[in-house]
Amino acid sequence: MMDKAAGLPIGMFDSGVGGLTVLKAVREQMPCEDVVYLGDTARLPYGTKSPQTVSRYAVQCAAELVGRNIKLLVVACNTASAMALDALREIYSDIPVVGVVEPGAQAACVATRNRSIAVIGTESTIAGGAYQRAIHSIDPGTRIVGHSCPLFVALAEEGWTDGPIPEAVAKRYLDPVFSPFSLAEQSVIPDTLVLGCTHFPLLASAIQKAVDPATVIVDSAATTAAIVHGELVRLGLGRTGGGCGKTLYLTTDDVARFARTGTRFLGNPISEREVELVDL
Amino acid sequence: MMDKAAGLPIGMFDSGVGGLTVLKAVREQMPCEDVVYLGDTARLPYGTKSPQTVSRYAVQCAAELVGRNIKLLVVACNTASAMALDALREIYSDIPVVGVVEPGAQAACVATRNRSIAVIGTESTIAGGAYQRAIHSIDPGTRIVGHSCPLFVALAEEGWTDGPIPEAVAKRYLDPVFSPFSLAEQSVIPDTLVLGCTHFPLLASAIQKAVDPATVIVDSAATTAAIVHGELVRLGLGRTGGGCGKTLYLTTDDVARFARTGTRFLGNPISEREVELVDL
Repeated sequence: MMDKAAGLPIGMFDSGVGGLTVLKAVREQMPCEDVVYLGDTARLPYGTKSPQTVSRYAVQCAAELVGRNIKLLVVACNTASAMALDALREIYSDIPVVGVVEPGAQAACVATRNRSIAVIGTESTIAGGAYQRAIHSIDPGTRIVGHSCPLFVALAEEGWTDGPIPEAVAKRYLDPVFSPFSLAEQSVIPDTLVLGCTHFPLLASAIQKAVDPATVIVDSAATTAAIVHGELVRLGLGRTGGGCGKTLYLTTDDVARFARTGTRFLGNPISEREVELVDL
Repeated sequence: MMDKAAGLPIGMFDSGVGGLTVLKAVREQMPCEDVVYLGDTARLPYGTKSPQTVSRYAVQCAAELVGRNIKLLVVACNTASAMALDALREIYSDIPVVGVVEPGAQAACVATRNRSIAVIGTESTIAGGAYQRAIHSIDPGTRIVGHSCPLFVALAEEGWTDGPIPEAVAKRYLDPVFSPFSLAEQSVIPDTLVLGCTHFPLLASAIQKAVDPATVIVDSAATTAAIVHGELVRLGLGRTGGGCGKTLYLTTDDVARFARTGTRFLGNPISEREVELVDL
């Protein structure tokens, strides 16, 4: 018989719909799991806010999910992972808490051949240096250049994901990152680019066009899902059989807008009937 | 002797730094007035949020300012003006409350020669139809076309206010608004464009390049300041003499970021020492 706790859902949260790119990867790797996904759309974006504010919001999101009896918590937001993961692990020490920064750092360290990695994300994620620390804890000799790209978030939300405008924005952001002139003298042009924001995978094709074709583009979604899978197996909490897992969506603001923009990020239709409004 | 209440400051709030374009106009027209400006940066943007959420935030902002003893309240945010002005006027019936939508509508009705007006703003402002109602209450025969331009907010915040990227974004948003093919058969191409968001004046030159040079571009800032001035004179609350007015800035998130991005919107340096962190 399956452990009772194994029947519980996985909880995930993000500032909005970006984390649905992580949910998509979880669904692909663990189709039987139930998931409760919370998008804190009333207070998005987190990426321009201070560590204190992001931490407070993250703890409120986690409390809502833990109150619904989850078996594992995924922080499907780079900014919240970068700023609040330690606090969440301390408060909720009885359930595993998985963020997206460590998986992204691991994937990047596996991908790079010249030990030079570029990381792009929101202002807060880059300024906080969490990716830099996570990569250096795996390989202290890796060179890292970070750059914040806040307009990518707005482009992804607007659905302008390819064509001349996102390509021009990508070039403007990324040219200095990969230019030998703007790097320090002893630096090497990065061969790997980490998409350190859950919104950015939607712009992957425009981003790929702006960089050398040999550059490996890494996003955290698949690696995060693999780590979640590994944790569930290790703890005997994986759900096997029982058919297709269900998803319940929670949002702190307009349900119709969540369903509409979320559909684009999940790559599958979300119906308004699956979305519940919550007040944190 | 000046009325004691005349010595009190004007209170203004916005979701962030956009309302500083209104403060700038107030400063130019009423240099002796003290102003307390609140930017609710921890919860920006308002423009993608539901009417209920925006209303709740607006009431909290107003309460903070009224608690500091102000003589007049300016809602220097189009989204909050569109969604919460009636509620604020009901709650704070003892002080004048001035929004930015009615002034913008008045300026547009004065400017148009063919009674066809285009309004651009955030998603919530356009969807809520407040400009449409305000213009029709002045001239019911005016034709109005509304279009939301959320990327303009991100571009203004990023400081990418001119050059090929904002011009391409402006063209993509505005071409359909001014195209005879996308308008209803009996419509007339608008000769006036209302910038229905306090962020948009920063992009005025890129916007002007995207439309017919004869199009009149209207923003609410100057007209709002004129209406504030008129109200103060009418009520005998105007401050005369006493030297240059002071400004106190309140923000709900990072003080350094407020000072940095605010400087761009105000067109004058804001020092971190003038900014106070508040929790609403």
